[in-house]
Amino acid sequence: MQHHEVQSEDKILFFKKEYISEFVYGGIDGAITTFAVVAGAEGANLGIAVVIILGLANLIADGFSMSVGNYFSTKASRDNFDRHKAREYWEVEHLGETEKQEIREIYEAKGFKGDLLNQVVEVITADKDVWVDTMMKEELEMTKDGKTPIKTASVTFISFIIVGSIPLLAYIFAGLDSGIDGAELFLYSSVLTGIAMTIVGALKSIVTERNILAGIAETLLLGGMAAMLAYFVGDVLEKVFM
Amino acid sequence: MQHHEVQSEDKILFFKKEYISEFVYGGIDGAITTFAVVAGAEGANLGIAVVIILGLANLIADGFSMSVGNYFSTKASRDNFDRHKAREYWEVEHLGETEKQEIREIYEAKGFKGDLLNQVVEVITADKDVWVDTMMKEELEMTKDGKTPIKTASVTFISFIIVGSIPLLAYIFAGLDSGIDGAELFLYSSVLTGIAMTIVGALKSIVTERNILAGIAETLLLGGMAAMLAYFVGDVLEKVFM
Repeated sequence: MQHHEVQSEDKILFFKKEYISEFVYGGIDGAITTFAVVAGAEGANLGIAVVIILGLANLIADGFSMSVGNYFSTKASRDNFDRHKAREYWEVEHLGETEKQEIREIYEAKGFKGDLLNQVVEVITADKDVWVDTMMKEELEMTKDGKTPIKTASVTFISFIIVGSIPLLAYIFAGLDSGIDGAELFLYSSVLTGIAMTIVGALKSIVTERNILAGIAETLLLGGMAAMLAYFVGDVLEKVFM
Repeated sequence: MQHHEVQSEDKILFFKKEYISEFVYGGIDGAITTFAVVAGAEGANLGIAVVIILGLANLIADGFSMSVGNYFSTKASRDNFDRHKAREYWEVEHLGETEKQEIREIYEAKGFKGDLLNQVVEVITADKDVWVDTMMKEELEMTKDGKTPIKTASVTFISFIIVGSIPLLAYIFAGLDSGIDGAELFLYSSVLTGIAMTIVGALKSIVTERNILAGIAETLLLGGMAAMLAYFVGDVLEKVFM
């Protein structure tokens, strides 16, 4: 085959492209989750200690659960493919005539008929791997996802923790005794988070193969709106509960 | 075709099976995120008001960002498929000979040769739709995901909010003036969250087509460990910062 756009773009820098997707979505989730704690706490005037404590608790718990959840769902999707494939092998062995008839119908739908159709069915069903491969792609419309569960989970975790810690940096480094007030720290946190989201949003456009500005705008808007929601809920509930 | 396992299982109760997957993963994420706030706040003894305020702020902000993020990623994956398909149509129109040679190589690999191979190539390339369809499945190994972005996003949001609010129910209904102390509320919250996770874990085994007990155990373990991490981080940081 002459062109391999998908394959040749597979590696960008040190990452395989497929894992950039995990890096991007893990990073966006991490930053938004942590920044939501920051914004909610700021809206409700809960103080710097609460931001640091619940920000970090959430970062670690969510980073863990996101990446383990990602492991299970990637694995489930692989297992599902393998199970269907094993079932097709079983059917080819035990229900050969029925499966042969299915191949015939698949190729009939492609425009084959008469003696040529017979010959095509013979060649396809002569090789069990080709036969099953045809059933998987044409009947079940399933193709195997090349991602390794442990790798997608690791990239998601690392990205979630790194990008997700950015909204907390100002609070952690300024500490409690710096004399910098909450509103100023919130400003620093917002700027740092905005920069991080811009970088991740730009990376996202590599994954989606879309305009880089659209990727950045989409990501900033998403994070900004989530933070505004959190701030607003915190602000309203402070009046109710405190 | 005679059997349609995947298609005939498509609807379970009122849900299409594909959306049960969004319901399950949205629900697990919602419950874990909110329960992490509850556990972290309990570990750090931050009080009931903080749990309610940051729990709800996080629930709404994360539910929003998860589902909008889901919308964008489902849409990106569809757009990616459509873009590759459009490119294949372009190549079939403008680089006909090259693309025909690719079809030849694909069918050679399946075991076709000689005159039969020529005839197969002629039939496949006689119909542009069949031709492009073959390139998509065989060369790019891409099949179209039938999910609608707006539907996956809606199911994710609703599930995230419903299941994710469960860890907060005890706090919200007992309120601040009930006299029930934090440890007791945390116990109720843990039990309710455990029940919710059990139900969602059971539903998960429908999605993954695996043993129901494995699905439940996996989900409970994941949520339990995330909550323990959050509790532990809260507990340690309380000593440092408060």
